[in-house]
Parts: sequence; structure tokens; C-alpha cells
Amino acid sequence: MSESGDMGLVVVGAAGRMGQTLIRAIHTMPGARVAAAVERPDSAHLGKDAGELAGIGIINVPIVDDPLPAFAKADGVLDFTAPAASVEFAGYAAQARIVHVIGTTGCSADDNAKIAAAARHATIVKSGNMSLGVNLLAVLVEQAAKALDPEDFDIEVLEMHHRHKVDAPSGTALLLGEAAANGRGIDLSGNSVRVRDGHTGVRKTGSIGFATLRGGSVVGDHSVILAGTGERITLSHNAEDRAIFARGAVKAALWARGKKPGLYSMRDVLGLS
Amino acid sequence: MSESGDMGLVVVGAAGRMGQTLIRAIHTMPGARVAAAVERPDSAHLGKDAGELAGIGIINVPIVDDPLPAFAKADGVLDFTAPAASVEFAGYAAQARIVHVIGTTGCSADDNAKIAAAARHATIVKSGNMSLGVNLLAVLVEQAAKALDPEDFDIEVLEMHHRHKVDAPSGTALLLGEAAANGRGIDLSGNSVRVRDGHTGVRKTGSIGFATLRGGSVVGDHSVILAGTGERITLSHNAEDRAIFARGAVKAALWARGKKPGLYSMRDVLGLS
Amino acid sequence: MSESGDMGLVVVGAAGRMGQTLIRAIHTMPGARVAAAVERPDSAHLGKDAGELAGIGIINVPIVDDPLPAFAKADGVLDFTAPAASVEFAGYAAQARIVHVIGTTGCSADDNAKIAAAARHATIVKSGNMSLGVNLLAVLVEQAAKALDPEDFDIEVLEMHHRHKVDAPSGTALLLGEAAANGRGIDLSGNSVRVRDGHTGVRKTGSIGFATLRGGSVVGDHSVILAGTGERITLSHNAEDRAIFARGAVKAALWARGKKPGLYSMRDVLGLS
Amino acid sequence: MSESGDMGLVVVGAAGRMGQTLIRAIHTMPGARVAAAVERPDSAHLGKDAGELAGIGIINVPIVDDPLPAFAKADGVLDFTAPAASVEFAGYAAQARIVHVIGTTGCSADDNAKIAAAARHATIVKSGNMSLGVNLLAVLVEQAAKALDPEDFDIEVLEMHHRHKVDAPSGTALLLGEAAANGRGIDLSGNSVRVRDGHTGVRKTGSIGFATLRGGSVVGDHSVILAGTGERITLSHNAEDRAIFARGAVKAALWARGKKPGLYSMRDVLGLS
Repeated sequence: MSESGDMGLVVVGAAGRMGQTLIRAIHTMPGARVAAAVERPDSAHLGKDAGELAGIGIINVPIVDDPLPAFAKADGVLDFTAPAASVEFAGYAAQARIVHVIGTTGCSADDNAKIAAAARHATIVKSGNMSLGVNLLAVLVEQAAKALDPEDFDIEVLEMHHRHKVDAPSGTALLLGEAAANGRGIDLSGNSVRVRDGHTGVRKTGSIGFATLRGGSVVGDHSVILAGTGERITLSHNAEDRAIFARGAVKAALWARGKKPGLYSMRDVLGLS
Repeated sequence: MSESGDMGLVVVGAAGRMGQTLIRAIHTMPGARVAAAVERPDSAHLGKDAGELAGIGIINVPIVDDPLPAFAKADGVLDFTAPAASVEFAGYAAQARIVHVIGTTGCSADDNAKIAAAARHATIVKSGNMSLGVNLLAVLVEQAAKALDPEDFDIEVLEMHHRHKVDAPSGTALLLGEAAANGRGIDLSGNSVRVRDGHTGVRKTGSIGFATLRGGSVVGDHSVILAGTGERITLSHNAEDRAIFARGAVKAALWARGKKPGLYSMRDVLGLS
Repeated sequence: MSESGDMGLVVVGAAGRMGQTLIRAIHTMPGARVAAAVERPDSAHLGKDAGELAGIGIINVPIVDDPLPAFAKADGVLDFTAPAASVEFAGYAAQARIVHVIGTTGCSADDNAKIAAAARHATIVKSGNMSLGVNLLAVLVEQAAKALDPEDFDIEVLEMHHRHKVDAPSGTALLLGEAAANGRGIDLSGNSVRVRDGHTGVRKTGSIGFATLRGGSVVGDHSVILAGTGERITLSHNAEDRAIFARGAVKAALWARGKKPGLYSMRDVLGLS
Repeated sequence: MSESGDMGLVVVGAAGRMGQTLIRAIHTMPGARVAAAVERPDSAHLGKDAGELAGIGIINVPIVDDPLPAFAKADGVLDFTAPAASVEFAGYAAQARIVHVIGTTGCSADDNAKIAAAARHATIVKSGNMSLGVNLLAVLVEQAAKALDPEDFDIEVLEMHHRHKVDAPSGTALLLGEAAANGRGIDLSGNSVRVRDGHTGVRKTGSIGFATLRGGSVVGDHSVILAGTGERITLSHNAEDRAIFARGAVKAALWARGKKPGLYSMRDVLGLS
């Protein structure tokens, strides 16, 4: 339990790139503080100060390897680790009856079932993309796709990422395409157009098109275009900085504080579910 | 009552610029047909064919000056005229128990009360902007503004119109600003920033900024930007063509056919109210 | 020779869609007037007034089938017809020693040689795209591509067109890609990336990517993005209206009036060659 | 003189925010290395390793206070300090006959005269904005403004910056407006429109409009729009990161290496003067 009014948060995987970003995000956001920093027992960083490692100076929180005492004295946990670790941390969060924000990706159905079970006692927020903006955009896209007739409006998803990205379209572009397909009550995979080159024929009514740009150091830009006769709606998200995922996780934790145990999503955090 | 399956629509003010656009819009949209064309008794166009006047060739609908028989044999009325005329037409639509789509602007509280009274027997859809896209955008802006914390996200409204426009910001920009203010539960007038030049100081938290571009023949572009730390959401509407207002009116009529009498808005047509 | 100060222009193919657009463009632009309107001998429109056919009211210019007397009394010819016809018209323009603006596409090397020969006596402006904006954009893209190091800046070409377009990328997108390749002194075909889907690997240095959007009634939007580390330049053209090609042709004719015989391009008209 | 093939660069003001950014930029760019790091004699950082201070680890370059021996063994100097210091450094660069890249702003006419005098022996590149992209954009804007007739195309300058910026329009927006005015051969101050609110009247032909957006953490976005009848050209620059100014300075130094003494600008570096 936090001694101050600020929400005390444990960062697991605290010495990793995302862990350090989480430490910095907590540090800059009002209402939260770093309660503990946990790493695996074989980490070379055990005993170091988590703030110094993250480049914000000493915060008097040494990196430790035992999550249980850390969870016992905290209000919540921020977790962008790996499926097996997140399942284990969910169990500890349930024991401690605290908030557990999970940004870990790649969980199996079995992992998700275990996390859902833990959510009987822990207040869990889980999402594959912790950005407030992307989650909000997906909700808006779903509503727009539902409101507009597929006979009248064509949907296109455009994304741009840096030159080092090795796959296309981005996961977020597909997430937005899924949101559009959900809004229309159709299946994305049977209705998406992912390549256009040479003779394509006229656009198929009801299809959802994807286009991909690559270049420079672009963190991630996404637009969903709904193009009708004589008018267009464009719903866009522009990420300047990968730290938005960490800030979204802290926001989720602050929102979840005091909520009943259960499994929540970023849509709940946004008040849009 | 329509004899075919298509919805028979009366266009009032049929010889005017918007009336002609409505005739053309009905002509190109499936499910609707021009049932009658009405003008004032002093119109120089009485007796002419409404289709020929609108540039789509003869449609065998002469322009007449008596609305009552026209309404009696139709399913709905499209009306972008003037407040006094729209109030009168609403009364006739109530007698005929048909659909009345009102795009007329500038109605007084008294006019609106009379239209509401007519809506006990007529199925009325009334909006100051009949574009599906702008109405949808306003709904999305309101939700986004509600979901995102004013401490975290700044809201800006940008618009561009052709060089002949004489006022700023546009009515639609203000409508979108109102939607944002509603989403936040604040008053727009006390929180808007409409000019920035010279030393402005830092941006005031919670304010809603406006910026205006003028040039060329731009029909109307609007963007609402929600800018946070590290990410931005941009919700935009681009109008290519003034005919979108006519098409929106036809869409509204088709939606309203068979609905119970009452006063509806474009949000109802979009299924978003 | 024009009797007034305005440049007298012959429109060939005057009853066709582009011919009518040219008639309207001349009508709205200062400094030019319709001197004659020519169609093929089998046209159903011979004898009709060219202005009335184009929807701008009677201009007292009947559509005729003999180009020679029309050319003899004019200052210039606007020609968006077909290769064989344009070659013939170039010969007549040479005889009359007047301006010949050719927007015809699909000319063979032999056609172009004949047109070049005619340019010894006619002042010919020929371009595959008569839009001032697109031609200007191509010049700017070439310069930007030349100025920025391919190791530092990645070039992407994005285009959006209406749902009825049957091929991709657009001719204008390829024209802009060529301009970028010229700026870099490379060959486009060996360096373009026209499809990205699934595992693409990292972006190849020096390549030029294309992405295509289709939807609604978009006349034609093109963007060339030069993306470096930490910054991006985007050079865009947005066409609201197909009439820009007609207006560009009139601009070209006005520019060419009084110039020495020769073969010119839109770059000359823009003062950028 | 550099002992390796890499250009040896002295960073002056090495412990400041921009100095550290310069150290990092040199570190990541091929062809350059940190030859020395100079601070004022009263700096608290003298003796520290310049790389460690800049967060890139030890590079074995201690911060020193005597510029002369540093300049003597280097190929160039990167200088974002203050006018008086830059004038002094220009003199030392002239003595050492090396490259001097000056990003310092606020120089008086007298300062500039002294720098020009030093450029008889030093190879100086000086610019108020060291971003390659912004300088390129200004050149393109000038050309576009020159090529397009003010009767036909309206010019608007739009910028967005973060919520903490206290003035409007940005210096870069004004620089781009100047470029447009130069292209047209007019004076910016007598032709700019910086505020639009309420009844503005129609747009004045030939004027250059400015619009300002503020919000979030936007580093700096600028667009110049040339809007004609039926078409628009938009030339934009998007800065993701303040480090682009440091990278531009390193680029300028690499370009200047081996060039004859003289006073150059970023346009020279871009090959566009």
C-alpha cells in the first residue's frame, strides 16, 4: 500500500529498454511514483539504482529480483515482459490484490485464461497497444465504419514507419483494419486488399485497402480514410515517440486504482467501452 | 404515396441553385425519384421541366407553385429554403404524414417550436449541415474530447476555404469546436483562442484553438487535432463538392422513410445518437 | 490574327468532353477568347454553337469541320485529341505560323518527330500532363532528390484516386518517380519498390517506393515524401477538378504567344527549364 | 589536421544542450569524429569526458578551455554559441585555416562583417537554421512562388509547434514567407496577413497568409500551400527531433572540407545556390 497519495508502481523488467522507459514515464507523470524495480535473478543490474540506470538520476529504488515483497508494498505493477512472466506476475498481483497493467504481447489462449483467472482478485488492464491515441482511434474507426454505408464510402488504411521496419502492413494498421471490419460486421481477411500494382480493375465495393510507406526515422503514422462521393473523412494517429506506450500504461494504472478486480482494456480506460 | 418502390421526393425551391443540386442528387442515387418540383408563385421557371433546368435532361416533372397536391402524392420533401417557408412546408408535411428533410438555416426559436409541433405527424430530419461526413466527424470529435484528459491533450481546429470566403472561422469549424467543448463539458466561447500573433505566451491548458487558411477554390477542409505528449490524433473532413449536402439530404430521406413521426437529426441518420 | 487584344484560340475536338472543358476554361480566363471550334466531319454536333454545347450559353462560335480557315484567323490551337490528328493539326499550325498546345497522349516516336518538324514554323507546347501544378511539382521533386543524399533521405511516392481507376500507380505518380530518379541520376525501373506486403526486409537504400490508395471520387492526390533521420519533406499536389488541364493549356497558349517557333514544354511555361 | 580519414571536429560550447547534441550527432555520422571539446574557462565540466557527458559513453575527449590548440589539430569547428564567441572562434578558424560551421543566431551587422573578414582564410558555413530540410524547403518555396502567377495562386504558411512555444508565427514560418515573397519579388511585411477572425472580406490577391497551431510536444511542422483554381501544391517540412540541426551542421562541415575559404550558406551545401 502506498504511503503517500501517489500511486506506488512496481516496474518489472526494469533494466530492459521498455522498463527504463517506464521508469522515466512514471517519473514525469503526476500521481505516480516508482515503488520498486524488479529484474530476473540472473540480471547484471541487480542492486543498481533503477533511476540512475534509466538516466534520470538516483531515485533510491534498487533493482531487486524478488517480486513478492515488492508487490506487497505497492499499488500496481507495470509489465511489458514475456507471456510466461506476465502470467506469473498476474498471480502475484492477485495475491496482493493490486493493479496489474499488462502490455506484453504474444500471449497464448492458455496464458490469457490464466490472466483472466487472476483478474478475479487483481485489477488487470491488458492491451496489445498501450497508446491512448491508437486505442481511441480504433474506437472512432469502428464507429465511423459502422455509421457509413459500404456502398457509399471506401475504407483505406495507410501507414508509414522508419526504414528499418521489416514487415508490412504494421500490426497497428491491421488493428485499425480489424476495427473497420468490426464496424461493418465483416471479416477483415476476406475483404482486405494488400497489394495494388499494374492492372487492378475498379475498386471492389466493401473492400478495405492497405498501403505502406517506409522511410527515415518515422516512429509510426497511421491514417484511416473513408472516401465517399464528394467527401472524405480521415482519422489519423501520429506517434512522435515510443514513450507513449509507457505513458499509456501509467495512465491505465492510475485509472485502475480503486476499481473492482476484473479484466479491463484500454477502451475502459478511455471510458469508451 | 409512391407507386414504384423508389421513394418519391418533392424538391421545394426547385429552380434555385440548391434545388437544382437536389434534383441532380436524387437523379444519381438509387432508391429515390423526383416526385414533384415546387417554386414560389412568382418564379419565372414555373412550367419548365425540373430536370432540364438542372442540366440532366427532361424528367417529365414540371415546376409547379402549389405544394399541397405535390406533397399529397409524395413520400418526402427536401427543403433548403428559408425559415418561414420551411415552417409552412412542415405543416403540409404533417398533413400528408410524410418525411420532411430540412436543411434550412437561420430558424428562430419560434420557428423551431413550430417545426417540432409539426413533427408530431411528420417525420422530420433537421440539421444545419446535411453532410454525412461533417456530422459524423462532430460525433467523433465529441467522443475523442471526452475520452482524452485536457491536461494531456490540446485541441486545435484548422479549416481551409476558397479565397472568396469573407468570414473566419467557418461555421463548420465552430460546430466542431462546439463538439469538442461538449465532449469536455465546457463552454466554447470562454475557452477558445481565435488569434495568435506575436507574443502569445504558453498555450493555456484546456483551451481550444482555431486557425484559418484561405486560398484557391477549396470547397472546405476541416481538421481537429488532439495533440498530446508524443502523439497526435487528427480527425479531418475534406469536401470536394457542394453536392454532398444534397446527397446527405437524400440519404436522410431514405433513412426516415417508414420511421415514426418525430424530430430527428443527422446523428440519428448515422445511427450515432 | 486576333482582331481584339485577346488571344483567339481554336479548340479542336470541340464537342468532346475535353473540348467542352477547354471552351469553358477559355471563357473564364482573361486574355483569351474562343476563335473557332472544330470537330470531325462526321460529328453530330456540326453547326451547333460551341458555347451552348459546353453549357456556358451562346458564344456565336459554330462547330465546323474544316480546320484550315479556322487556324488562318486564329492565334493558337488547343488540342487534346489523338496522335494522328495532332500530327495533322501541327502541320496546319506551322502553315498558319501560330501557337499549338498539344495535350494529346500516346504519340509514337514517329509522331513526335513530325511534331518536332512542324515546330520549325509553329510555336508548339507539348506535355503529357498540362497541369501547372503537377509540372511544377515534378521540377521541385527533381531538385529535392538531387540536393539530398540517398544515404540520408528515402523517397516515397503516394497517390490516391477515385474508386473507378483501374491501374496503379497512376501515370503522374510514375512521372514524379521519374523526376526523383532523374534528380539522383538513377534509373527508376531498376530502383522502384511497387509492392510491400508481409516480410519485406529493411528498406533498400536508394530505392523509390510507391503506395496507392483508391476510394470515393478523388480526382487525384500525389505526394512525394523525402524521409531522413529526424525530418521529412513532403511535396504534394491535390487536384480538385479535371478542368486544371484545360486551364493549364490556356496558360500555355498565352505564354507561347509571341514566342519564336519551337518545341516547348510546361517547364518552359513555368520559367523553370 | 586529422590523422585518420575522418574529419576531426571541435565542438565549442561542448557541455551545453546543443553542444551535447553535436557530440552525439558526430558520433552517429560516418566520416566525422570528435577532435576536441571546448567550454568556457568557468565551466564546471572542464576535464570531464565529452562523450560521457553527452550520454554516449567515454570517447577519450576531455572538455578543455583553450580553443587554440584544439583548432590547430582539427579540420573543422561546430559552433552554436553566442555572437561574440562566434566572432572570436571565426578568427581562430582563420588562423588555423579550417572549416567553421556557425549556427549561432542574433549576430549584428558588425559581427557578420567580422565573420566575413575571417572567411578570407576560413571556410565558413553560416545559417540561422541548420536543418537541411528547412533550407531545401525555402529554396523550393521561392521557386514555386516565382513560377506561379499571384493572380492564380494564393500562398499560405501554416505551422504547428508544441504548447510551450510563446510566440507566433515561428521564425521558420517567417523564413518560408520571406522565401515566397522573394520568389514573387515583393516585400513580405507589406503583404502578409497574420490574423483572420470575424469578418475578413475576400482574400487579397498577392497576399501571404499565416496560420498557427499550438499543442502537445510537436517539435515543428511547417507547410506552404499554393492554392489555385482547382489545384493545390503543398510543400511541407516535419521535424521529429531537434537533433536535425546538429546533423545539418555536421553535413555542412563534411561538405566544406577541402573547399576554398569563403562564406557559404546551407544553400551551397545543398548545391542549390
